Amino acid sequence: MHTNEIRLFSPATIANISCGFDVLGVALDSVGDEMVIRKVSEQGVRITKLVGQDLPMETDKNVAGVAGLALLAASDYQGGFEIEIYKKIKAGSGIGSSAASSAGAVWGMNELLGKPFSQLELVKFAMEGERLASGVAHADNVAPALFGGFTLVRSYDPLDIIPINSPNELWATVIHPQIEVKTSDSRKILKTKISLEDGIKQWGNVGGLIAGLFMNDYALIGRSLEDHIVEPIRSMLIPEFDTVKAESLNAGALGCGISGSGPSIFAFSKGESTARKVAQVMKERYEEIAVDNDVHVSKINSTGIKLLHN
Amino acid sequence: MHTNEIRLFSPATIANISCGFDVLGVALDSVGDEMVIRKVSEQGVRITKLVGQDLPMETDKNVAGVAGLALLAASDYQGGFEIEIYKKIKAGSGIGSSAASSAGAVWGMNELLGKPFSQLELVKFAMEGERLASGVAHADNVAPALFGGFTLVRSYDPLDIIPINSPNELWATVIHPQIEVKTSDSRKILKTKISLEDGIKQWGNVGGLIAGLFMNDYALIGRSLEDHIVEPIRSMLIPEFDTVKAESLNAGALGCGISGSGPSIFAFSKGESTARKVAQVMKERYEEIAVDNDVHVSKINSTGIKLLHN
Repeated sequence: MHTNEIRLFSPATIANISCGFDVLGVALDSVGDEMVIRKVSEQGVRITKLVGQDLPMETDKNVAGVAGLALLAASDYQGGFEIEIYKKIKAGSGIGSSAASSAGAVWGMNELLGKPFSQLELVKFAMEGERLASGVAHADNVAPALFGGFTLVRSYDPLDIIPINSPNELWATVIHPQIEVKTSDSRKILKTKISLEDGIKQWGNVGGLIAGLFMNDYALIGRSLEDHIVEPIRSMLIPEFDTVKAESLNAGALGCGISGSGPSIFAFSKGESTARKVAQVMKERYEEIAVDNDVHVSKINSTGIKLLHN
Repeated sequence: MHTNEIRLFSPATIANISCGFDVLGVALDSVGDEMVIRKVSEQGVRITKLVGQDLPMETDKNVAGVAGLALLAASDYQGGFEIEIYKKIKAGSGIGSSAASSAGAVWGMNELLGKPFSQLELVKFAMEGERLASGVAHADNVAPALFGGFTLVRSYDPLDIIPINSPNELWATVIHPQIEVKTSDSRKILKTKISLEDGIKQWGNVGGLIAGLFMNDYALIGRSLEDHIVEPIRSMLIPEFDTVKAESLNAGALGCGISGSGPSIFAFSKGESTARKVAQVMKERYEEIAVDNDVHVSKINSTGIKLLHN
């Protein structure tokens, strides 16, 4: 392999995580895209290959291109980059497809340039890809993709990302029922006002979830995976959500909710075997109503994007 | 001292803690009431002495009495208790005066009965005292008084109290400007609806605060002590709040906010000397405008109510 070229894995991510709407995200270990980033003398960023999904390859219409341009603009490097993207995360699935491409691009470029930028700066560049994808430069998928594990976006102004402890036996199950929900639509149906009472419940649960993660208290993590604000509204867009959730909990999941803005549904479990049992009941439900679906079972990824050597 | 009698210290507590409205509380180490609890053959609960504050001594009008009756009702003990209360926390100051009495009473009775009740059950009994004091059976002062350190009330239904790590060098400064703000009034002025945007900031900060406490990250604790929802409204009832806050931060405090429903103002600092400097600037401010005040400087109490041997 060329010394000016790296191959990397960029993970799928679950954002929102029930009570953690707009602030929490987590990276998966065994679901993600592969990318090749190549340093070239020609200026600018070019997407030279895009395999697995039908997405625009023009730099300024591709999230990896736009994120890469943001990095280049902040750098004093005079050359450019070529990017190959091997998409394994379906666009629109709700597990951070655009974030994986944006974060992977800027992480790879930073490696090839000798790491001039901090992780926090990389989050900012990658957020430009998110702005292209959804109209909002959110950080709750790109932050866990870059930092690994659970991350909290405490504040946007200034941007403050807190990496959170990820218990060792925590596994995620994600099912993607193949119906289309656009992030922008699922944002529109949210109310702009909430009751103080629901707010109090929500920040109580966020506190409980963060405490549970630090204390490796799986039961507390489970009890805290409640959402009185967004899930009751957005779940209406996902067929069979309530049943899938009830059956997942019944199969032993600690908690279950909407991944990102949907339509994917995630569950957390303690240990792989429970996570696989949950995958089975989720899948059976959608098979019964003949909705195509993909299921992923993954440990929580604690390191984020990583180099692939092959 | 009689073997059927104990003397105890019940700490003052700060509830709400900026972003943690209605869910967070913390116990102080060197500010609190003293109580004597005595097991007697006569049934019922009697307040036999009440020193330091002008409060009702009738059992059903005294918070310690009401909390004690709640414990007795759940117990199979056939005798009763006498309670002496040496109030050092001023009623209405916003640092958990009623909670100290309620929690102290039930904790002491439980000790004398050989600890038949769990900490969580004691919280429930003590909440009955809070119901008498403010009309709402809240737990955010009685929980830290009983558990010590920081506590999170994740949920009321079912009651779920999470003890949170308390960093070793964390100190609190509390000033009580002697103006009267009734808890019930300061609750009435709150809005019943909040914007989703402010809610997201709030639960981001709660997450940051809990993470900072677990990580012993004092700077993160400070950054997270923000409140976009309650403080902007309630601070209007506290003269010079904005100035006191600005000067406290300027003197080195990590953060500053309203204690409970006010009028006391708290600040957290790393280390005693900063906490004392903060006390000085707070005091000077109120002296200038001729408002009587009490200032307390205290380490965070990590054990809660304790026996006094003397």
